[in-house]
Amino acid sequence: MGDYEDGAFVEPDFALQCGTVLPEARLIYRTYGRLSRGSDNVILFPTWFSSGHTQNEWLIGPGLALDPEQYFIVSVNLIGNGVSSSPSNTPPPFNGRCFPPITILDNVRLQRRLLTRQWGIERIALVIGRSMGALVAFQWACYFHDMVSRVLPFSGAPRTSLHNYVFLDAIKSAIEMGLKGNKIDPKDALRLVGRLYAGWALSDEFYRHRLFEAEGYSTIDEYIRGRWEPNFVNRNPFDLLSQIATWQTADISANDRFQGRLERALAASTANAIVMPCRTDLFFPPEDNAEAVAVMPRAELRVIESAWGHRAAAAGSDRRDIDVLQRAIRELLRAD
Amino acid sequence: MGDYEDGAFVEPDFALQCGTVLPEARLIYRTYGRLSRGSDNVILFPTWFSSGHTQNEWLIGPGLALDPEQYFIVSVNLIGNGVSSSPSNTPPPFNGRCFPPITILDNVRLQRRLLTRQWGIERIALVIGRSMGALVAFQWACYFHDMVSRVLPFSGAPRTSLHNYVFLDAIKSAIEMGLKGNKIDPKDALRLVGRLYAGWALSDEFYRHRLFEAEGYSTIDEYIRGRWEPNFVNRNPFDLLSQIATWQTADISANDRFQGRLERALAASTANAIVMPCRTDLFFPPEDNAEAVAVMPRAELRVIESAWGHRAAAAGSDRRDIDVLQRAIRELLRAD
Repeated sequence: MGDYEDGAFVEPDFALQCGTVLPEARLIYRTYGRLSRGSDNVILFPTWFSSGHTQNEWLIGPGLALDPEQYFIVSVNLIGNGVSSSPSNTPPPFNGRCFPPITILDNVRLQRRLLTRQWGIERIALVIGRSMGALVAFQWACYFHDMVSRVLPFSGAPRTSLHNYVFLDAIKSAIEMGLKGNKIDPKDALRLVGRLYAGWALSDEFYRHRLFEAEGYSTIDEYIRGRWEPNFVNRNPFDLLSQIATWQTADISANDRFQGRLERALAASTANAIVMPCRTDLFFPPEDNAEAVAVMPRAELRVIESAWGHRAAAAGSDRRDIDVLQRAIRELLRAD
Repeated sequence: MGDYEDGAFVEPDFALQCGTVLPEARLIYRTYGRLSRGSDNVILFPTWFSSGHTQNEWLIGPGLALDPEQYFIVSVNLIGNGVSSSPSNTPPPFNGRCFPPITILDNVRLQRRLLTRQWGIERIALVIGRSMGALVAFQWACYFHDMVSRVLPFSGAPRTSLHNYVFLDAIKSAIEMGLKGNKIDPKDALRLVGRLYAGWALSDEFYRHRLFEAEGYSTIDEYIRGRWEPNFVNRNPFDLLSQIATWQTADISANDRFQGRLERALAASTANAIVMPCRTDLFFPPEDNAEAVAVMPRAELRVIESAWGHRAAAAGSDRRDIDVLQRAIRELLRAD
């Protein structure tokens, strides 16, 4: 992935959308490449649910679509992920369960301050994001449209669907049950969250064709226990609950400017956009994205034809889907 | 639904597929209508996961597709459902967690004894089943093909898919977590199972169009708490675990006769068949059924075009889907 620099941006007295003021809001980020003289080569790449900035690196590197030899790539941790400000690393009175509710817009506003104050960036060549990061990308394009030239949200949507909400409600309940237990190891609940993910993050087609064998597992039980049980087991439960709440309530129009009118929010985008859902994604099916693209100017819907569901084009998934994604990124970066 | 008679069939020393002999295997059933002189008007209708015989009644009654004025309808409880032999009602040494593993074929063999010994029935006009009951219907048509004239499995499949297995594994884990808890009320785990069901039993489209409003709920939270949390809360956890195991391992070819060769099992069917998956069913998607119908003689695939997912055509779902199902039943009953 090339050379990088790690940094922390600290914003004092950051007012959240919910009204609470965080005495100190921190964004932890990693940058790759150099900011050009005209500051016109910025790519912003936020993380997703329960992921950290190092997990963005499958697309970053010389010869990859996000190439540090050409671009200044800012890989930034979402609030609540355990790296940037989170329940697990914030001092009282905002620690643990007392951490305030965070919105996608809170993330975007803080990221904007990072870009403008740290480097004087006024325009972003590309905002790219996966899953919860795609929600962030949509929010950027529609809320700070005069800063965003291009946007590529993949495996995401501008608003969390009710079906997705129902899934999130279940994993929230599993974590809460673990926290209530006495004899129960809370890690059991986090193992259960992993098992729940195993069903939702992939597709019937993925399992029918035993594509988990491509990840090195020979039986379904090995795959569940080996790949998914450990997935969240070392996460802080309150960090997960914070990000679940962010995801559950995510809606790029849920703010004073757009007042819940999603179409109005989407219509505000001026970026050149490629929106990439996967055909078999149970969280963010193409139908939801098609509705969004229909009212979003300059946006193209490009469905990833894959059995990998929500994991299509993610790190470790089918190479062909990652190539499809990289071709779209390169094409978009070449476009005006 | 017309008049009915309730009955219990008790089979001593019933040898299960796993090798265990149940000292007393009980099937509890309800019949509607009268057996014709030629015993040629029998409809067999097994229950599904965690349901009881009274829940079959939305299709049974004068003027409904399963009409007791014409047919002798046998509504039979699956083993493990808390009514027929189950962990909760079997004496030691086979009570609770010690209840032996039950297969779909165990159910079918015991149902066959009920029909032949209780009433001397040699031929069944129709076996109809939903979900786990559809697995039973497939098993009947392929294993005792010389007894089955017609079969209509809906919202089911001849074998549980791996994706479905993953879901079942998660609800199993939730129940087990509840059983391990100390401060935890095991009912919390059963509420969680209900919430998990809410995501899987319906579809993204169902939620996008807020079809839960048709069930009388105005918000998603009311729907989850009001409709789904209570759904399993009064069930015995060991009964649920027993039926989960039956479902997880279900495969009509998993027996000495077919030796795991699903195509061979399906090819053995001689019944006139209409197989009805719902387009948006996450448990049993049409693709799985299409593969089955392709190798099953005299079988037609008829997809239920509905947003109601696994609940399409079930009691309380969209009237139009129930009508589609009833038309198919009538058409099949008229056919040779």
